[in-house]
Amino acid sequence: MADHGVPVLRWADTPEGPVLALLDQTRLPAEEAELMCSGADDLVAAIRALSVRGAPLLGVAGGYGVALAAARGHDVAEAADRLASARPTAVNLAAGVRRVEGAYRTAVDGGAGTERAAAVALAEARALHEEDAEASTRMARLGHGLLGELVSRRPMRLLTHCNTGILVSGGRGTAFAVVADVHAAGELDRLWVDETRPLLQGARLTAYEATREGMRFSVLADGAAGSLFAAGQVDAVLIGADRIAADGSVANKVGSYPLAVLARHHGVPFVVVAPVTTVDLETKRGGDIVVEQRPAQEVTHVFAPVSAGKSPYHPESRGERDDGIAVAPAGADAYNPAFDVTPPELVTAVVTERGVISPVTSETVAGLCSPSRTTTSRGGNGMMNA
Amino acid sequence: MADHGVPVLRWADTPEGPVLALLDQTRLPAEEAELMCSGADDLVAAIRALSVRGAPLLGVAGGYGVALAAARGHDVAEAADRLASARPTAVNLAAGVRRVEGAYRTAVDGGAGTERAAAVALAEARALHEEDAEASTRMARLGHGLLGELVSRRPMRLLTHCNTGILVSGGRGTAFAVVADVHAAGELDRLWVDETRPLLQGARLTAYEATREGMRFSVLADGAAGSLFAAGQVDAVLIGADRIAADGSVANKVGSYPLAVLARHHGVPFVVVAPVTTVDLETKRGGDIVVEQRPAQEVTHVFAPVSAGKSPYHPESRGERDDGIAVAPAGADAYNPAFDVTPPELVTAVVTERGVISPVTSETVAGLCSPSRTTTSRGGNGMMNA
Repeated sequence: MADHGVPVLRWADTPEGPVLALLDQTRLPAEEAELMCSGADDLVAAIRALSVRGAPLLGVAGGYGVALAAARGHDVAEAADRLASARPTAVNLAAGVRRVEGAYRTAVDGGAGTERAAAVALAEARALHEEDAEASTRMARLGHGLLGELVSRRPMRLLTHCNTGILVSGGRGTAFAVVADVHAAGELDRLWVDETRPLLQGARLTAYEATREGMRFSVLADGAAGSLFAAGQVDAVLIGADRIAADGSVANKVGSYPLAVLARHHGVPFVVVAPVTTVDLETKRGGDIVVEQRPAQEVTHVFAPVSAGKSPYHPESRGERDDGIAVAPAGADAYNPAFDVTPPELVTAVVTERGVISPVTSETVAGLCSPSRTTTSRGGNGMMNA
Repeated sequence: MADHGVPVLRWADTPEGPVLALLDQTRLPAEEAELMCSGADDLVAAIRALSVRGAPLLGVAGGYGVALAAARGHDVAEAADRLASARPTAVNLAAGVRRVEGAYRTAVDGGAGTERAAAVALAEARALHEEDAEASTRMARLGHGLLGELVSRRPMRLLTHCNTGILVSGGRGTAFAVVADVHAAGELDRLWVDETRPLLQGARLTAYEATREGMRFSVLADGAAGSLFAAGQVDAVLIGADRIAADGSVANKVGSYPLAVLARHHGVPFVVVAPVTTVDLETKRGGDIVVEQRPAQEVTHVFAPVSAGKSPYHPESRGERDDGIAVAPAGADAYNPAFDVTPPELVTAVVTERGVISPVTSETVAGLCSPSRTTTSRGGNGMMNA
């Protein structure tokens, strides 16, 4: 691995006791600074300030937060409640918190002392972390294998949108993990990084990740992707997913759908990389996905990336800040959907830690989620497994 | 007309002598301030500072600049030379300057005194201004008629990219003039304004023009246009053109081509509005158009829109400023083409002041440019004339 940067998240035993050290994402890309959390209060503040973000990474952080409370001798149940609700809509956060809390509680109920139970909690948090990293590794390997079949050119020119790497994952992420695997094999020519307006996750965060990996990359305005397709400069598109409906429709950061249409127009593979937990069988069709409209200010104003130590480009913030600089006339209305929905017929394949489905249909999605589905990467269910 | 704003350009006789008053575009949209030019020097500075910009408008301004030098009793030939070279690549600027200088020279050579010759120069500048406005009016009317045929919904939802209105024209512009005509007829539901990264001409300037016209409009991140198409919220796309090749390929601001692909995917008309002078028969095919690559800084940095009275968002600047705030990691590479090329098969129609061509082919483009082509708006050459 080329990455020797500051760890995104690490547990450390210091003379003052255990801490959870976080790479403060609000200061990226201007500076790499660690934020030391010595208890759940610190971590709740860090989560709220978006110093740590990204669904899987929040789950891992929440788990360590419970272990930290236990190791410090704090009230674990109370800490867990506060951590679980630090970001109300973050399902992974609450799940990670409750899992580690459950392990701690089971140990206590089984007669373990608080010290022994704290060790159990830490082990559970580490297991969660490792599972997340392992899922990334599996997606990376499966996605790389798929690209090997879909793309004939070596090295490859890959295009991505938004932020899907180490900053959102206990491992190397989803789509970005695939790119990193291709890069590690010496098969990456260049990563095209959509800047991803309005919050610039691509320019700020994916470009940072690519820099850490030592990849060749170029940032581009989202509208410039069309020129790359027209020039034959894109061998495949790789994106993550916020949610995948039962019919295979993919909700992801706004700007993903235009890439899917361009990819189809130019005969370029469009590949979605996401853990199986992203699939929501309760959402039957893409049309059932309610798209969040975000504040106009994200579009009508620009912000300095670091302001008093706090980034305005919060991927999940409400965008309601008073220190933005207007680029549009006062009172201008904006249309600012958080994500868009790509229909399954435009998606070449979905790569998960359980395998690859292609074509993407209700049947292959159901098969992926079937309890009988193993995590083997070959055969079964009539699905292609790279 | 709903527009009662500060004139973009006006000639005024003041007690101190004649002046050319310009709406200072570098201060938009934060403030509407007039810049008073009392001689060619002032105007050259204003042109260089991009206080006045846009190819047709520069031609008109340059013409008035010569008239101003004449009215002030300055050296007209010397003033004309400085004006013509204020923006070396601005063909319209030099053409406007030389036309008015020629009228002045002819008057002097014919025995007119300097005062009479100055009046001739001013009349010529005004004629140029009126011709430009008339071309806008004709494009607006023809484009509106075309939309009447192509779009069944009333009122219409139109989408545009970059800046094509009063800020770039002696009249109401090109694509924006069509929108304004639709709006004046009460047939506009909403104008969707692509923000147009990286220089945000849509958010800054088109939104300003739409505000002046009293239109309902919304600004959007360029990548959000796909969501609008998918939701059936776009009845037609209207854009301008930097250049149209002999085969009908259209070079325009980067981000135009993805709109053309989306429009085709969704069966939405994609209409280009531009004066006949935009057609360059010397450029045979779209592939012959050399695309300017602009500085990475425009993508990797953000700027406050008004800084010490000077806008960083110069549509034609080199983007090399030292006061931008990095949003990407230091040293990040960027792919930043100034424009893209849309092939003729994706263009529903080209609207010019001489008429409308559809389909857009080498033959219809040649017919449009034929010397025998009149400016009538009906019949002839097998082309559709709306």
